[in-house]
Amino acid sequence: MKTPDDQVLATRRRFLLSAAGVAGAAGVAAASSAAESAKAAVHEAIVPFHGVHQGGIITPAQSHTYFAAFDVTAQSRADLAGLMRAWTDTAVKLASGVSLGEAVPDPAGVAPDSGETLGLPAHRLTLTFGLGPSLFTQDGVDRFGLAARRPAALVDLPKFVGDQLVAARTGGDLCVQACADDPQVAFHAVRQLARVADGIAKIRWVQSGFLSKSDPGATPRNLMGFKDGTMNPPLNDAATLDRHVWVGDEGGAWMRGGSYMVARPIRIALEHWDRMKVAFQEQTVGRSKVSGAPIGGKGEFDAPDLNANDADGNPLIAENAHVRLAAPAANDGAQILRRSYSYDNGVSFVAERWPPWRQGMELDAGLLFVCFQRDPRAGFIKIFDRMSKFDMMNQFVTPIGGGLFACPGGVAKGRYLAQALFEA
Amino acid sequence: MKTPDDQVLATRRRFLLSAAGVAGAAGVAAASSAAESAKAAVHEAIVPFHGVHQGGIITPAQSHTYFAAFDVTAQSRADLAGLMRAWTDTAVKLASGVSLGEAVPDPAGVAPDSGETLGLPAHRLTLTFGLGPSLFTQDGVDRFGLAARRPAALVDLPKFVGDQLVAARTGGDLCVQACADDPQVAFHAVRQLARVADGIAKIRWVQSGFLSKSDPGATPRNLMGFKDGTMNPPLNDAATLDRHVWVGDEGGAWMRGGSYMVARPIRIALEHWDRMKVAFQEQTVGRSKVSGAPIGGKGEFDAPDLNANDADGNPLIAENAHVRLAAPAANDGAQILRRSYSYDNGVSFVAERWPPWRQGMELDAGLLFVCFQRDPRAGFIKIFDRMSKFDMMNQFVTPIGGGLFACPGGVAKGRYLAQALFEA
Repeated sequence: MKTPDDQVLATRRRFLLSAAGVAGAAGVAAASSAAESAKAAVHEAIVPFHGVHQGGIITPAQSHTYFAAFDVTAQSRADLAGLMRAWTDTAVKLASGVSLGEAVPDPAGVAPDSGETLGLPAHRLTLTFGLGPSLFTQDGVDRFGLAARRPAALVDLPKFVGDQLVAARTGGDLCVQACADDPQVAFHAVRQLARVADGIAKIRWVQSGFLSKSDPGATPRNLMGFKDGTMNPPLNDAATLDRHVWVGDEGGAWMRGGSYMVARPIRIALEHWDRMKVAFQEQTVGRSKVSGAPIGGKGEFDAPDLNANDADGNPLIAENAHVRLAAPAANDGAQILRRSYSYDNGVSFVAERWPPWRQGMELDAGLLFVCFQRDPRAGFIKIFDRMSKFDMMNQFVTPIGGGLFACPGGVAKGRYLAQALFEA
Repeated sequence: MKTPDDQVLATRRRFLLSAAGVAGAAGVAAASSAAESAKAAVHEAIVPFHGVHQGGIITPAQSHTYFAAFDVTAQSRADLAGLMRAWTDTAVKLASGVSLGEAVPDPAGVAPDSGETLGLPAHRLTLTFGLGPSLFTQDGVDRFGLAARRPAALVDLPKFVGDQLVAARTGGDLCVQACADDPQVAFHAVRQLARVADGIAKIRWVQSGFLSKSDPGATPRNLMGFKDGTMNPPLNDAATLDRHVWVGDEGGAWMRGGSYMVARPIRIALEHWDRMKVAFQEQTVGRSKVSGAPIGGKGEFDAPDLNANDADGNPLIAENAHVRLAAPAANDGAQILRRSYSYDNGVSFVAERWPPWRQGMELDAGLLFVCFQRDPRAGFIKIFDRMSKFDMMNQFVTPIGGGLFACPGGVAKGRYLAQALFEA
């Protein structure tokens, strides 16, 4: 994925840091063992911002995410386009691992970069930008003269059964998903983008998340203790991705090669879940907890056999098991690319509404559910409409916010994010 | 640090996982490149729970922390001692990277382990337990007949200038600091310990944190963009640690080899700090932002020259610079071992009280300040009393909670945490 230009940027960065006497040079010299060299190689990895598609969609999941939704406060389309230009410039630098200013900031000035990643590599940082429905139409108002270009697929999400969405954590005119293998790199990226947006857009809500560092190729477990993401389409299956993930000609030139992102924080009643018998958990999910195999199957990647019955003629995988309701075979072939992270927002006071009717501090943690698809009407909305009504897992999970965002196609060098939308 | 027993545990764990057909075995087979082998070696590292001192104090900082304070709800000393015994057993297993139950849980039962670390190595997990002042005396009541054994050094922290402590994030009868190189491992550990404590103690407040993965030996930067921890005593200097970190005979047998931990979340006004000129930031800290060298010095580890003046006879390092107020030379030789993490709690609404008098959503982020010392009266309290009054940095930082905890000495095999306190 590296281009010659990116190599140059990485080298330039190292040079500047060494020249400034930063620990980077010393660190490289000290990295004499194989372990350290290998670690350095992993961390040095750069995912260039420019490309046919935005990063952070089919990029193999990094270990950390920082998602931010913004409200646009500016009134003019020119200001909005200006922000897209500025975010593009910033994103190119951030993804390349270079400081936003010079590596040695001018003491007499205000540094354009807050500096907490000085000396750090890019850690595979990707920035995935999206546009929310409210950017096009809000309370019936065509805010920026873009209403006519709102893609049909960029619908207002319906209110699903069980949704307990908090307004302050829902929606947003714009969003960015920053993913990296270091939490400080992801945090830093959103901090700089918020700063660049000052006076034009402001943060509405954010959610950070993490994935455990599993063995290569292994599916990470979510906080329910089950593997999450097994049924994803393979990231190298171009035909399937074209069919289910990437937008074609139907969304306007600015959406070609883009995708629609649903991002919803879902709180999980972990204390309650932990009190359930393993067999009940497995029936709920429809999979073995340890191996991840669908019930009745042997390996994690076996297709769930939705028609198999037990000796009494009852379905092996329950009618309301999560895996059945999510399966393409049960959804007219519908598929989404899930890219979720676990989240931890500390603890908060909860009064439980069913046995054992406890009340007290509980872990405010769960899943930042993220998925990408070519059309949410044929993807998330189709699948989740049934799931929200019937999934046995709903006893333990509560969607608390989020939204749908149109992620434009990738940005070619010399152009900026969604340029064709603003200049058409 | 590995003992033969730990090797056995790790091997047993791998065997069970492989036998269960989990991806662990496939993962190991796939880890054929040097990079993967090296990564695996790093992640396999185990810090045994047993030892002369508790882990997580002089253990080189892991990349993630999860701190939790608990209130004891049980009334009897026997219940409290029982919790210490159960936490010890649990901590030994967690630190060894083994599942709390069998790796293959019994489907007919409730699993003793929530399972989100199945297949993961220990990631250098350490668990550092502490006892708060309120465990000994609360509102004048000797709750567990332990008041007479409260160490003189376990004082009630004074209210410092600038403290804005939120009661729900302050204090606690007990605490645990879980640190690991994977956030899910640290989260999992606290989740299991809270579960083991059910009916005896409940979570009062928690705070997770992270450190950027710097080059080996490099000092990580905090969210102000400056290196944090440069002045720490070297972790291999036994004489200094004995003098400033480890408790000797003065605290009772259960505190011998222990230490006192101060843990305080400190919110940083990042948006405001980012608007300051670099020279002002450097005067505030008393160090160069990029190199970390004290003003007037050349290298990060140069001792700050507190007597140096500029051509006009003014101090090179300002009278109210952070580095001056923290320096042992300015505190009668007082030293503490800092072990802080950055934290990110999302965003919250803030009305700023000075120019530019903005109000709106700001990053709810900062520093989970953690330090260890032999006696807080001669350590944190002595140093911070002056700092809280004079430090130029106080314009940007607000302590919002936290507490002081007595961390008992390390636990020998066959014994439990603070056993001598309960059975004396």
